[in-house]
Amino acid sequence: MRQIGFEEIENIALGAALLGAGGGGDPYVGKLVALGAVREHGPVTLVDPEDVPDEALVVPIAMMGAPTVLSEKAIGGKEYQTLYDMVSQFYSQEIYAFMPIEAGGVNSMLPIAAAARLGLPLVDADGMGRAFPELQMVTFTIGGLSATPMALTDEKGNSVIFETITNKWTEELARAVTMSCGGSVSVCLYAMEGKMLKKYAVKNILTRSERLGRAIRDLGKGSAERPEEAFIAAIDGFKLFKGKIADVLRETRAGFNFGKIVLEGIGPYRGQEAWVEFQNENLIASVEGKPVATVPDLICLVDTETFIPVTTDALKYGKRVLVVGLKCFDLWRTPKGLELVGPRYFGYDIDYIPVEEHTKGGGCNV
Amino acid sequence: MRQIGFEEIENIALGAALLGAGGGGDPYVGKLVALGAVREHGPVTLVDPEDVPDEALVVPIAMMGAPTVLSEKAIGGKEYQTLYDMVSQFYSQEIYAFMPIEAGGVNSMLPIAAAARLGLPLVDADGMGRAFPELQMVTFTIGGLSATPMALTDEKGNSVIFETITNKWTEELARAVTMSCGGSVSVCLYAMEGKMLKKYAVKNILTRSERLGRAIRDLGKGSAERPEEAFIAAIDGFKLFKGKIADVLRETRAGFNFGKIVLEGIGPYRGQEAWVEFQNENLIASVEGKPVATVPDLICLVDTETFIPVTTDALKYGKRVLVVGLKCFDLWRTPKGLELVGPRYFGYDIDYIPVEEHTKGGGCNV
Repeated sequence: MRQIGFEEIENIALGAALLGAGGGGDPYVGKLVALGAVREHGPVTLVDPEDVPDEALVVPIAMMGAPTVLSEKAIGGKEYQTLYDMVSQFYSQEIYAFMPIEAGGVNSMLPIAAAARLGLPLVDADGMGRAFPELQMVTFTIGGLSATPMALTDEKGNSVIFETITNKWTEELARAVTMSCGGSVSVCLYAMEGKMLKKYAVKNILTRSERLGRAIRDLGKGSAERPEEAFIAAIDGFKLFKGKIADVLRETRAGFNFGKIVLEGIGPYRGQEAWVEFQNENLIASVEGKPVATVPDLICLVDTETFIPVTTDALKYGKRVLVVGLKCFDLWRTPKGLELVGPRYFGYDIDYIPVEEHTKGGGCNV
Repeated sequence: MRQIGFEEIENIALGAALLGAGGGGDPYVGKLVALGAVREHGPVTLVDPEDVPDEALVVPIAMMGAPTVLSEKAIGGKEYQTLYDMVSQFYSQEIYAFMPIEAGGVNSMLPIAAAARLGLPLVDADGMGRAFPELQMVTFTIGGLSATPMALTDEKGNSVIFETITNKWTEELARAVTMSCGGSVSVCLYAMEGKMLKKYAVKNILTRSERLGRAIRDLGKGSAERPEEAFIAAIDGFKLFKGKIADVLRETRAGFNFGKIVLEGIGPYRGQEAWVEFQNENLIASVEGKPVATVPDLICLVDTETFIPVTTDALKYGKRVLVVGLKCFDLWRTPKGLELVGPRYFGYDIDYIPVEEHTKGGGCNV
């Protein structure tokens, strides 16, 4: 158990943006929401998942919808109390703690703001260990947990509780209401007892985000002797490519951003071409037409000098990026995990390639 | 207090279709749902609103969405139990009785089916005394009652509870979920205590529907000496026009059916032209370009021989119809009522014309 204040929030926001794997929203916007709440209410207590009582009610809290809309909407804080009341009334039980559902620039931050404003602890765990585009893509689905009862509220004060037959239907109905509410809402879903949390959650993800964020800030100053190698080593990553953004093909379908980034190699990759395909998050990285990393492993683009993560919203022609792979959470690599979030679920006719396999022999020093 | 069985249902369905004023759905489909439930569970107890205890919880139950979709969906009856559980859990109170929210071929019937299947009484009252296209258009809105908490469920088992800041937002969000659920769902809304019911409800509306339905069946056989005059007198109606459908202009916008019926006069109206404009329900009737009846009074088209009501879904070129007006519920004629459902709300730049004014001097025997 420890306290999270300004310094920790800065690092978590940056590290969570890396774990967002191209998605998860703008860490700058998310950070402001968390910093504002901590400025008003003081630091947040971060609880180790192992210390949560078995019967305690732990509730993930998140923003649903387009993160770009978030920055134009006021985050009053009233939403957190509304969600708390809806969920605790439904279960006739107090909420023990909030937690994030995914790692990302926005959704790692909102639960910090909610915990600060309501004076609740925050659990150091989430349900993805990265960001994914659809709400059934959480480790708790493997554990058989339902996303519902799911509570949703907008900044105007409208609120909705969903109970659905499948998590796919939750996605469908909640998405429709989100659109009607203006594109962005706050939600609580996958409420669970401590024992489910301990069994299926991705543990210590905020601590990991913080560590990654610190590495980016320290090594992005370029003062290390070989900063790129030091960065890759510090994040336990695998170097997949280094190049200049030559083209970004985008398509918006059914509320998701689909696209393909075309990269022209630089440095040791000069003369080679790489593609990174995404649906909100980066899904497949290919070099010279051959896949080198796939979802659910994390494919992250970072600035070649500052190592600051580049989200799919912020891709710009000419930008120089390092493409790094990170191993996903173990449970995603099981048959059940791959069924839920493997390349085939996303419509690719290829098998999952563990990111460490491809770079074996070459590793992070290619 | 009395029992409603097969014979009563047949008459209520027909009379409610007349009160639907062109909307409210197909009484044939609605009837089948009610008859099926009564066949399985026996007749339903109809309770006079004055006999409902002041603190008892009375819950309107209805279908929301396109009635045409209803006929293609199975009405399992499971929905009614789901709605009961959602509402009574929310209020921590047993539901005393169901009631209809509007009069119409479908929504007068569904509450009968629900009451039969759950063994609950049905209150002889509704919130419109006719059908209207939007859910805030109920007498209870004048009484300051909120539509929410509103419970919604589909035939698959998905369920949603809404709490909104205005009844207009309820309409917006519930409409979005209804569309995602396939276009037709079952809902409970405007749950209220007995004392609110007694003050604002349109009382004895099922009994009135039954009486109207019996008049249609008796006089539609043509055995009376002057059946048309007898029919108009029996329903307390005002004859507005008699003609042949010459054209129907239709437009579907935002989930509503808009349109205009053009009628060529027959009999005493030969050589004249009339229009009936509608949004799901008939809103304005004009003869020779001059409005003769407006919403919230009821403008009803019936077959010239059988007096069976013709809904806006079933308009056919060449069909001969009698256009009759019926006085609306008193509360709709107050300034607050007209603000909610008068011609100006629907975008017409004219004042409300009480149906009896126009036909004064001529009356039902024009």
